[in-house]
Amino acid sequence: MSLIVVGTMAFDAIETPFGKVDQIIGGSATYVTYAASNFVQPIQQVSIIGYDFPEEELEALEKRGVTMEGVVRVPNKKSFFWSGRYHLDMNSRDTLVTDLNVLADFDPVLPASYQDTEFLMLGNLHPLIQKKVIEQMKQRPKLIVMDTMNFWMESSMPELESVLKMVDVLMINDSEARQLSAQFSLVKAAKAILKMGPKYLIIKKGEHGALLFHEDKVFFAPALPLEEVFDPTGAGDTFAGGFIGHIARTKDISFDNMKTGIIVGSAMASFCVEKFGPQRLKEITKADIANRIQEFVDLVNFDIELV
Amino acid sequence: MSLIVVGTMAFDAIETPFGKVDQIIGGSATYVTYAASNFVQPIQQVSIIGYDFPEEELEALEKRGVTMEGVVRVPNKKSFFWSGRYHLDMNSRDTLVTDLNVLADFDPVLPASYQDTEFLMLGNLHPLIQKKVIEQMKQRPKLIVMDTMNFWMESSMPELESVLKMVDVLMINDSEARQLSAQFSLVKAAKAILKMGPKYLIIKKGEHGALLFHEDKVFFAPALPLEEVFDPTGAGDTFAGGFIGHIARTKDISFDNMKTGIIVGSAMASFCVEKFGPQRLKEITKADIANRIQEFVDLVNFDIELV
Repeated sequence: MSLIVVGTMAFDAIETPFGKVDQIIGGSATYVTYAASNFVQPIQQVSIIGYDFPEEELEALEKRGVTMEGVVRVPNKKSFFWSGRYHLDMNSRDTLVTDLNVLADFDPVLPASYQDTEFLMLGNLHPLIQKKVIEQMKQRPKLIVMDTMNFWMESSMPELESVLKMVDVLMINDSEARQLSAQFSLVKAAKAILKMGPKYLIIKKGEHGALLFHEDKVFFAPALPLEEVFDPTGAGDTFAGGFIGHIARTKDISFDNMKTGIIVGSAMASFCVEKFGPQRLKEITKADIANRIQEFVDLVNFDIELV
Repeated sequence: MSLIVVGTMAFDAIETPFGKVDQIIGGSATYVTYAASNFVQPIQQVSIIGYDFPEEELEALEKRGVTMEGVVRVPNKKSFFWSGRYHLDMNSRDTLVTDLNVLADFDPVLPASYQDTEFLMLGNLHPLIQKKVIEQMKQRPKLIVMDTMNFWMESSMPELESVLKMVDVLMINDSEARQLSAQFSLVKAAKAILKMGPKYLIIKKGEHGALLFHEDKVFFAPALPLEEVFDPTGAGDTFAGGFIGHIARTKDISFDNMKTGIIVGSAMASFCVEKFGPQRLKEITKADIANRIQEFVDLVNFDIELV
């Protein structure tokens, strides 16, 4: 078995300048697996859902090779719910509602069949939950990737620092990198964060692309210039899913292959923002993905003849 | 003769979070030629200076192959002076002083020896001055590149529109592209601006890189992630100088060669911000430039094997 994905499976209500949806499927693990399942199967999901999470959504993921043995359904509680409103520039948003519901009880137990999996993707969760998952692995995965957010830097920094020492790749956005490192320059921020434990750091800059740092090396991948960003919700998790999906497919954890993983992640994220929620990710084909990746190649490819 | 550069030669006073200088050499044509002269010589300068512009600064440029026949010195007036203060993030600044001085009288007359030059770089000036230069060319240059700014969009839009119809490449920043097109999405902005006349549009995004648009094609070049940006003054003009210098050296105005030109321009701009004013541009060698361009290759280069 190749990839464990830990994260939320939830409902979102989203308002953007283009429209509004009251309740659609969301959650970090949902987006990660919709993206990653294009590249690697099976995927072993770890999450918690309430009585209200639709069975057909689980079945849709199962058809994509996602195993639900690690997903716990709580019969008398609602699923995690998040609601947000995007500003006109789509780069910032206000959280309107966060109802933890089942997430307050999330205490993941890894099924025995998950415990020797090679790749582990930890979606944004309390750092102690992320740590507990790592500690249940019978053998150390080949690569552990984690996402986190500013909320944990403010509320649980010691716990976050302890889990940072256990992972290989940290994935955060630019403002989180600045907050975590107390450095404004992203180059200085990366140097500081790489001393905290992770060997690789991916800084996501939204419409401005993503940076990969490792030792003294740096790689930059642009975001595809889009006519319209319809709904950015889940774009970061979709990026993570494309990245880890590519790595788990190729089983190659070199810096060079991570560069390719970031291009794959960027391509997947560029689909995600085209419709509300994970809708667009459900529709796209392997040919769509190949074409989109080619657009990234064309976007940055140049010949140079030194003077 | 290969390249005409039209623009200001001036004094700047600059305040950044890293320090302050009261009077250093600046001006768009100064930065353009310091960058372009690494790639192509001679360069035919067109500008206006006051009695106070130092003779040794002219000589330093002449040593780099810059011809001063088109530079008028006004004996009883001061040179153009600009003073600005950068904010902590270095992405925005306040203009403190703009003393036009000699610039109020600028009415460029192209020397006969300039009139059949192949490449023309029009720095940011009143659009009617840019137009007047174009109209003095005996034969239409192979490529006309122009810079402009929001000030002319607000004060002289009809004149700006008329000169846009006469140029090949427009170079502006992201907020200027949005203002000129009344479109927020840069992809939509580019489509609108390409209908106004220019066949190529370069949108500069500062630390977020630059985009080149032509017909349905788009190319993206990142900015080099830097530990510190010491002084961004002149970075846009230096970018322009690297771009047009590469194009004039190779005499190749294809889209593919413009992509390379943008990488060269980005490399030159990354030097410019390392010290106050054009200081760093005076120091660097051809080997420094080749190494910096290689850093750009490493930064964006990746292998892809489609799934």
